[in-house]
Amino acid sequence: MEERTISSQRPFEGKLISVRVDTVALSSGRTATREIVEHPGAVGILPWDGERLALVSQWRHATRATLLEIPAGTLEPGEAPRATAERELGEECALAAGHWEQGPSFFTAPGFCTERLTLFVATDLRADDVDAPEDEELELSWLSLADAVAAVEDGRIIDAKSVAGILWLAQRFAP
Amino acid sequence: MEERTISSQRPFEGKLISVRVDTVALSSGRTATREIVEHPGAVGILPWDGERLALVSQWRHATRATLLEIPAGTLEPGEAPRATAERELGEECALAAGHWEQGPSFFTAPGFCTERLTLFVATDLRADDVDAPEDEELELSWLSLADAVAAVEDGRIIDAKSVAGILWLAQRFAP
Repeated sequence: MEERTISSQRPFEGKLISVRVDTVALSSGRTATREIVEHPGAVGILPWDGERLALVSQWRHATRATLLEIPAGTLEPGEAPRATAERELGEECALAAGHWEQGPSFFTAPGFCTERLTLFVATDLRADDVDAPEDEELELSWLSLADAVAAVEDGRIIDAKSVAGILWLAQRFAP
Repeated sequence: MEERTISSQRPFEGKLISVRVDTVALSSGRTATREIVEHPGAVGILPWDGERLALVSQWRHATRATLLEIPAGTLEPGEAPRATAERELGEECALAAGHWEQGPSFFTAPGFCTERLTLFVATDLRADDVDAPEDEELELSWLSLADAVAAVEDGRIIDAKSVAGILWLAQRFAP
């Protein structure tokens, strides 16, 4: 099924994302255009204290709304996902974890974007006050897993990585 | 927490996506730059015959891989999500559904993209052979819900909407 790239342009290069426009040859011989957003990749964290999950509320300019999400962040150049997760848990939640476990890893929007996001479960939590970046304003809250699942069902949580992560954790704890 | 837009540019306008770069004022008084991918929105479909889920395998140029996903598609201008879902179920799976139920709706990548994706459960399925678009090449397969959940766990399914949709359906059917 592979599509072979015939020609490629990069009409936008930003600080976070770039856009590539490829002309590709399909296996049928036809050609098609693919608009691709290049993204460095990301992590999402499920900080679990044994009874509750730490979530953050944050204004998301793209959505024109404040969203309730699992803590998350973008990979710095050359940074391993686990290191990003440790950094973001400190910056967004002022927490450190004694135990880390990697969960599912998925493409957030494979139809047009290269972003792959890896989930981590962070347990054995302790306070770890670090300086947060000055362009992020967040509010921390703690939800039971049952309440987090209810928040997915009733539309309080409308962020894909959070929906996937919370339902995955619930699935693991299911009888 | 709202960020006020001070200035805005649109450095890329494509057929599927556009890029907007906004300078915003934070509530602290500082300014920041937000790179936003504008996307018309999408649907994902969980076609459920009572025992198995219909999935599609498709080359995803952005990921350089063939992914196993729930059927999905992008909203046409002015199209209601439910109509998109009916159209895509026909085009991608050659199926029509007698019953539709709306599921969770979420932003796929709220940190930088406006895309909101709505899930639908399609049941009472019947064959409905329609012409597929010529730039899409898909293979249909049917998985039990248990196998679909296992595919999320073992990394056969690495697409966010599919992970979220399958785990949501499994959660609904949980005892």
